[in-house]
Amino acid sequence: MARHTYLAMKTPAEARDIWLENVLRRCAAPGEERVPLAQAAHRVLSRPAEALRSSPAFHGAAMDGIAVRAEQTFTASMRDPMTLEIGRDAFWVNTGRPLPEGCNAVIKVEDLHRGQDEGHVVIEKAAFPWQHVRKLGEDMVATEILLPEGQEIGPCEIGALAAGGVTWPLVWKLPRVAIIPSGSEIVSLADAQEAELRSGQSLPEFNSLVFSAMLRDAGAVPVTRPIAPDDPEALRRALESAVEGGADLVIMNAGSSAGSHDFTADVIAGMGDLLVHGVTVMPGKPTALGIVSAGGRTVPVIGTPGYPVSAIVAMEEFVLPLIARWRRQEPRSRETAEVVPCNPIASRPGMEERVRVKLGMVGGALYAVPLPRGAGTVTSLSRADAIIAVPRDCEGLDAGAPVTAQLLRPRAQIESALLAVGSHDNTLDLIDSMLRRRMPSCRLTSAHVGSMGGLSAIRKGQCHVAGCHLLDEESGIYNRSAMRTHLKGVPSLLVHLVGREQGIIVMPGNPKHVTAFADLAREGVTFINRQRGSGTRVLLDYELRKNGIAWQDIAGYREEEYTHMNVAAAVLSGRADAGLGVRSAAQALGLDFVPVGMEEYDLVIPAVHAGDWRIAALLDVIRSQEFKAAADAMGGYDTRRSGEIAWEYDGN
Amino acid sequence: MARHTYLAMKTPAEARDIWLENVLRRCAAPGEERVPLAQAAHRVLSRPAEALRSSPAFHGAAMDGIAVRAEQTFTASMRDPMTLEIGRDAFWVNTGRPLPEGCNAVIKVEDLHRGQDEGHVVIEKAAFPWQHVRKLGEDMVATEILLPEGQEIGPCEIGALAAGGVTWPLVWKLPRVAIIPSGSEIVSLADAQEAELRSGQSLPEFNSLVFSAMLRDAGAVPVTRPIAPDDPEALRRALESAVEGGADLVIMNAGSSAGSHDFTADVIAGMGDLLVHGVTVMPGKPTALGIVSAGGRTVPVIGTPGYPVSAIVAMEEFVLPLIARWRRQEPRSRETAEVVPCNPIASRPGMEERVRVKLGMVGGALYAVPLPRGAGTVTSLSRADAIIAVPRDCEGLDAGAPVTAQLLRPRAQIESALLAVGSHDNTLDLIDSMLRRRMPSCRLTSAHVGSMGGLSAIRKGQCHVAGCHLLDEESGIYNRSAMRTHLKGVPSLLVHLVGREQGIIVMPGNPKHVTAFADLAREGVTFINRQRGSGTRVLLDYELRKNGIAWQDIAGYREEEYTHMNVAAAVLSGRADAGLGVRSAAQALGLDFVPVGMEEYDLVIPAVHAGDWRIAALLDVIRSQEFKAAADAMGGYDTRRSGEIAWEYDGN
Repeated sequence: MARHTYLAMKTPAEARDIWLENVLRRCAAPGEERVPLAQAAHRVLSRPAEALRSSPAFHGAAMDGIAVRAEQTFTASMRDPMTLEIGRDAFWVNTGRPLPEGCNAVIKVEDLHRGQDEGHVVIEKAAFPWQHVRKLGEDMVATEILLPEGQEIGPCEIGALAAGGVTWPLVWKLPRVAIIPSGSEIVSLADAQEAELRSGQSLPEFNSLVFSAMLRDAGAVPVTRPIAPDDPEALRRALESAVEGGADLVIMNAGSSAGSHDFTADVIAGMGDLLVHGVTVMPGKPTALGIVSAGGRTVPVIGTPGYPVSAIVAMEEFVLPLIARWRRQEPRSRETAEVVPCNPIASRPGMEERVRVKLGMVGGALYAVPLPRGAGTVTSLSRADAIIAVPRDCEGLDAGAPVTAQLLRPRAQIESALLAVGSHDNTLDLIDSMLRRRMPSCRLTSAHVGSMGGLSAIRKGQCHVAGCHLLDEESGIYNRSAMRTHLKGVPSLLVHLVGREQGIIVMPGNPKHVTAFADLAREGVTFINRQRGSGTRVLLDYELRKNGIAWQDIAGYREEEYTHMNVAAAVLSGRADAGLGVRSAAQALGLDFVPVGMEEYDLVIPAVHAGDWRIAALLDVIRSQEFKAAADAMGGYDTRRSGEIAWEYDGN
Repeated sequence: MARHTYLAMKTPAEARDIWLENVLRRCAAPGEERVPLAQAAHRVLSRPAEALRSSPAFHGAAMDGIAVRAEQTFTASMRDPMTLEIGRDAFWVNTGRPLPEGCNAVIKVEDLHRGQDEGHVVIEKAAFPWQHVRKLGEDMVATEILLPEGQEIGPCEIGALAAGGVTWPLVWKLPRVAIIPSGSEIVSLADAQEAELRSGQSLPEFNSLVFSAMLRDAGAVPVTRPIAPDDPEALRRALESAVEGGADLVIMNAGSSAGSHDFTADVIAGMGDLLVHGVTVMPGKPTALGIVSAGGRTVPVIGTPGYPVSAIVAMEEFVLPLIARWRRQEPRSRETAEVVPCNPIASRPGMEERVRVKLGMVGGALYAVPLPRGAGTVTSLSRADAIIAVPRDCEGLDAGAPVTAQLLRPRAQIESALLAVGSHDNTLDLIDSMLRRRMPSCRLTSAHVGSMGGLSAIRKGQCHVAGCHLLDEESGIYNRSAMRTHLKGVPSLLVHLVGREQGIIVMPGNPKHVTAFADLAREGVTFINRQRGSGTRVLLDYELRKNGIAWQDIAGYREEEYTHMNVAAAVLSGRADAGLGVRSAAQALGLDFVPVGMEEYDLVIPAVHAGDWRIAALLDVIRSQEFKAAADAMGGYDTRRSGEIAWEYDGN
């Protein structure tokens, strides 16, 4: 039954237009309801709200003092003071209280003089009519329109409605959105068994949690339905039941592609109209949009891809705009900014690509470092500062050429972050947390491109800090020689971060008996390497040469990973028997570690940034006992010299 | 017991520093708790979140196809195709599923050729190791820091935590904020009796609703306590009980001033430290800040002023920054913009004034029209687009000189609104609602300064539209003569909005028998006038001259109101016996109406804006049957010519 092809692909904009036009025309939008004011925040008025009562509802005192009839006081003056009898000519009133019958002015307590007794006061100035009086209706008059139709209710609107006596405003109902997770191996996060997850026997379902949070923020009510198996009939029943159950919109998650186990598009077509299947956006291509009918209700349905990054693109492109339309609001638009890609960004012509990037404001420009682009790379979602959309007719973006990006965080937050580009070390994450704890506005955002990549970013003025551990093969000294070679003309500080124990990471018990570099070339030993330009790779190549080992003799030498943790994971999973990396990575995954020596892991900071308050905050953290203790606890670090200025490079 | 003076006044910044420094040092901040991921949105991580599981948790297929051991395929080529036996050499896998033991590559289904039977496939190209495989830990490796401490959890963070197996993240507890409304005449909105509210016998309490909405948005849990009477002992008990009940912060609303019935400051001083009483900000001056102890707990307390506008300033200056600090977040800062005041803004030296304004983007500049500034003017809260802070050492701001304003709405929303400045008519509110219904991004924002004020704003290029009904006393024709006089050099369209029936508004039954203008000068008849520059005032003065009536003979001629509705309210409340105004205002409040004639109420639109799509949308609304029917229903309008271009003025 499953279709193996998409319909004619649509661009995201075309697909959205088709979807919104059809849904708004053919499906019932959520109706109106009255809600108590205490629950009205973030709701949207479905009709103009008219004041039911005037505010103030009476003529009231605007000051503490006495209420009088102004005309009676007209002859009072300094020369001819007037005595007023309390209870007859004048009446004590406090701010906000109604004027007694017949009074039309208030004389404030500071302007009163003592009379012959408590029952009298003396005034030396006439009151003019309505002085210090808040008049009936001064703020609003009953029947006036207080707030227009389509107004979102915030705290101030609650105040205005309450003052006008509108205690149950009429608002648009919240759209109910049913989420149907599907997939035969999928289990809910709560039911997930660790062993089954590790073996791949089951996959945890969490897109429904992500969708629910997005939907609530957008002003809808998510309802997650039971997980449906990859079976057309079961999916049809699940969809039918969601529609009949009162959903205003149904999201079917996973199975929206055109593979042999993807039934969403056919299920939609079988119950109504499949409007769109296949969108020229990456990630997000396998999206299905349609309208189905069941139990007398006609309801929009979207089939979203299963990979989280694709799924979120589908939500943002199609679901959130529809909910905004139902709320009669403009879809929330993101702030945009001009950013400069640090690296070229490749793109497939014919597809609009959404590339998530980290940003750093360095010397007046926002530099963008692309994050890994896999549709399953959830960390690219949480780490991203912005999204760059590469247009459909374009083969990619050049490094250095400004482009527009949509910001995912407040601009001030992005601009106040320090951008670290270069080698990665786990202590950088530690520093980020500690910086934020000390100063919520300060953070360290880091992109992992290896030591050489970091020096290159420093040279181009594209980052504040670069983690670096490059051994000079001749001198055996770290980093200085590389700085002289690559940072000529860029005076920089070399700040010692940590000494790191490097070694060979092996399975617990070291089953292949790897005890030295020579063992890596042994028959039956598979190695996992680091990428070119990383300090660890430089160290390996140095050691191989020193020990007279040909790289061609090492099985797996060409397999590259980008981080210590990924090297450790490769060993843990049996993909490789050994990899070179830091002790903390081995320790984190419970692996064994064959030490080969200590290396210097330093931070390179251009002298132009040395006076920046954020750099000062960074150095404070690195020099703190708190940091040293936490790094020591991770294992394999020597923090005795952390924060020392190892070298001031003058650029020559 | 009540104190009648403030402590030495502090500036808002000084007061906030004293408050935050004392509270953060002396009071316990809300602690940590674990919450299920499904409820974690908008919470803030109290520790760095480490991945408990790698993702993917196994080597899995990245494509649909067959899993193989790559080394076994190395000899396959076009010339020398290789047959693989399913179940021995190759295994069908779908995207996302784990590779069978021993496999390390996937060949996608498109690259397979038919074998001799279902049990065999043929390949014409070698697979390289790990091709089309999502490797264990590719996205994250167990023990890696997924998210730093202090990170607010949004949809993407929920995805990252779920993928890393962090199903119960550790977050900061939400601060519990007790709100104690106080005041002897105060009743809860639910208990309010209409008759008692109208007489002023009771006042509705709604600041607690406004505060609650602000607190929830800021990430706190509001708890509104029972209303306490204006009595020091009752207030002390209410505060004690809130502290002992577990509040992290207490807000006492009203009674924070220094009057004879204001006890908050003394109650705070009696239970702990009164840190600040009196802040040099308008509105908001009577704010009290302190720390109290009860039942072994030491808790911050703020006494906020009772007037809503002042109360909100106190919330924004002191409560929200504290909650942000407890969440370890930067306080949310508002976007700012340069705006140009249309009128001078007076200010009291020594006080920092917060002036709420309406904004309109006209010809590239954002023009600001100040709203009424009373501390009780709730509509100034809901109508405001921005706040201008007038510095303490300044006597006011000049019209035309750019100043910085904090935006209260998204900039795009402000920029897309049409700004109407001039005479007010209730149909303008109708048009705003109808515009929004048609196009959520379009709105009509209006400031009421009278017909002459509108023409002046048009001349200065400070608005898009001006409502105008200025009678030329000689010709008896509306608006054209005024345009020739005041808009020389500004070519403009005169668009007819409505014919309006003007008349004398009197109490039901017309007890003073007012039937003509001459009756206004009668003994015993009190009049309520409109402000100079309003079209209605022009009409009155014209009629008085025509009828030979001296204004000095009219009691109340000098009493001015700014809108028809306020004139009607003045009559309804007995403040005046008669006022000149439109029929719809009389009808709205159930008053009688003595017609004196029809007038032309038109819109003046500068020719430079005539091509604007928003003006086109405005004209569409005015010409619609929907608008005409709604205006007709309001009474006293003639809509037969609504939307006609009455005159194209060429500026000469």
